[in-house]
Amino acid sequence: MALHIAYLVAIVAEAMSAALVAGRREMDWFGVCVIACVTALGGGTVRDVLLGHHPLAWVQHPEYLAYTLTAALSVGLLAPLVLRLRRLFLLLDAVGLVVFTVIGCNVASELSMPFAIVLVSGMITGTCGGMLRDVLCGQTPLLFRKELYASISLTTGLLYMGGQDIGLQHDLAMILSMIAGFTFRILAIRYDWNMPRFVYRGDWS
Amino acid sequence: MALHIAYLVAIVAEAMSAALVAGRREMDWFGVCVIACVTALGGGTVRDVLLGHHPLAWVQHPEYLAYTLTAALSVGLLAPLVLRLRRLFLLLDAVGLVVFTVIGCNVASELSMPFAIVLVSGMITGTCGGMLRDVLCGQTPLLFRKELYASISLTTGLLYMGGQDIGLQHDLAMILSMIAGFTFRILAIRYDWNMPRFVYRGDWS
Amino acid sequence: MALHIAYLVAIVAEAMSAALVAGRREMDWFGVCVIACVTALGGGTVRDVLLGHHPLAWVQHPEYLAYTLTAALSVGLLAPLVLRLRRLFLLLDAVGLVVFTVIGCNVASELSMPFAIVLVSGMITGTCGGMLRDVLCGQTPLLFRKELYASISLTTGLLYMGGQDIGLQHDLAMILSMIAGFTFRILAIRYDWNMPRFVYRGDWS
Repeated sequence: MALHIAYLVAIVAEAMSAALVAGRREMDWFGVCVIACVTALGGGTVRDVLLGHHPLAWVQHPEYLAYTLTAALSVGLLAPLVLRLRRLFLLLDAVGLVVFTVIGCNVASELSMPFAIVLVSGMITGTCGGMLRDVLCGQTPLLFRKELYASISLTTGLLYMGGQDIGLQHDLAMILSMIAGFTFRILAIRYDWNMPRFVYRGDWS
Repeated sequence: MALHIAYLVAIVAEAMSAALVAGRREMDWFGVCVIACVTALGGGTVRDVLLGHHPLAWVQHPEYLAYTLTAALSVGLLAPLVLRLRRLFLLLDAVGLVVFTVIGCNVASELSMPFAIVLVSGMITGTCGGMLRDVLCGQTPLLFRKELYASISLTTGLLYMGGQDIGLQHDLAMILSMIAGFTFRILAIRYDWNMPRFVYRGDWS
Repeated sequence: MALHIAYLVAIVAEAMSAALVAGRREMDWFGVCVIACVTALGGGTVRDVLLGHHPLAWVQHPEYLAYTLTAALSVGLLAPLVLRLRRLFLLLDAVGLVVFTVIGCNVASELSMPFAIVLVSGMITGTCGGMLRDVLCGQTPLLFRKELYASISLTTGLLYMGGQDIGLQHDLAMILSMIAGFTFRILAIRYDWNMPRFVYRGDWS
């Protein structure tokens, strides 16, 4: 229940920051809405399509689309406010990352998927929305170049599933893993942690 | 039946204009064929994958692939003609948009999807082919920057489903909504109507 | 059985060359891993999603992910070696192309798909991994601009399915078609064969 509310807050926050990204590229309002929906709901959609898990969340609950669209359109009015609340949005984005990850793990877990796939399902849910946003905006996904997004998602999933494996109660494992992932993300932003890059300059097409 | 013939005309027209887009990017003939298939059949494919509606239209009717490929390859011979008939192609493209939309609404409607999803299904069918074409050609989808494509698709879907809801006979609602959407599109081209853009210059990654 | 071993060799080789492509774009190690997985396993994934064939290969066999990730990460240590063995990798890549094609044909064939779809399924399996890699790296797919990849995949599929149709034993048809496709690919590299391009300079958006 608390997870569901956190999920709704997260998709609204993701939709609002995605709308600003689209606005910087001077998209029209339709583009803004598509980018917002894809960013907020794309991770879960990719996961469900890959796992053959139908109906999709937003097909079963079209109100998710309504929340996302309302959030995207309200950014036109609230853009200065959103900018002033940048810190709050970074926090909400971190909440979104761990919430999406835990939900993704749950979906695969309920389908009795193997452990590795449960983790991958969490990572896909946490990260694919942003990846699709970047592809549709015509840029190499940010995800591949900076931010520890994927590592944080993996850590959260490992702690969540591992915690249950070693006998922690479900809710406790969930809360602890989410706090750990959230803290990791905040520290990564604060101290500008990055994954090392693989830089290769040889001749290979 | 008339809808089916209009559909076939539309996929052939879409395939031919997509082939010209690919030709401007100096793709090889295989690339031209892929771009043509993706543009003509991609909208319905995305819709069916998202709704879990299998088999896909072109899997069940491989002749659709044959029509699309023939159309794409014939553009090599007919390019000057296609260019001279540019107006006709714009009309056929407008027909395609409303036909794809109505078909998309029908598919979701037959799966007893909620009203909002029926409209989204129509919009996906009408617009995703062009979106995929632009992503594969490595550019930000045109759809997000100009043309009222998506709004026209939404209007057509609303009139079609709304008309049936207020008791219009199915065929009448279909024809009226298609005429309205077609007229809207032609007027949008004629008077260069665009969606307002959301231009945001603040500092947000 | 031999086909399965060839498949494993092929995904490892594809993952390693994809990691070098990602390294040239200075991606971080997470990006390298995603690009490697998408390139090695993406073709089969697209095929299975389009055909509604669940569970996906890597969902059922998560060890495929492990092989791909190990291969991608080992490239950091082995990059100079990989470069020195460039010829070997080109050979393995050619093996991958024909193996993926034959496997793709088999999957569609077992689902009793029509002949054209069996061929398309082989081509998707053989070529979509590289196409997705290029889209995620933000470039127009190579596939559309050079290399006879798709034609070789189609030829292999035609010989494989056609051979069985005219009464060849399954294994014989498979081996002959794979040898033919492999030879075709090697000759195409050696003599720099390309598909003709469709170059169109007229005014068409």
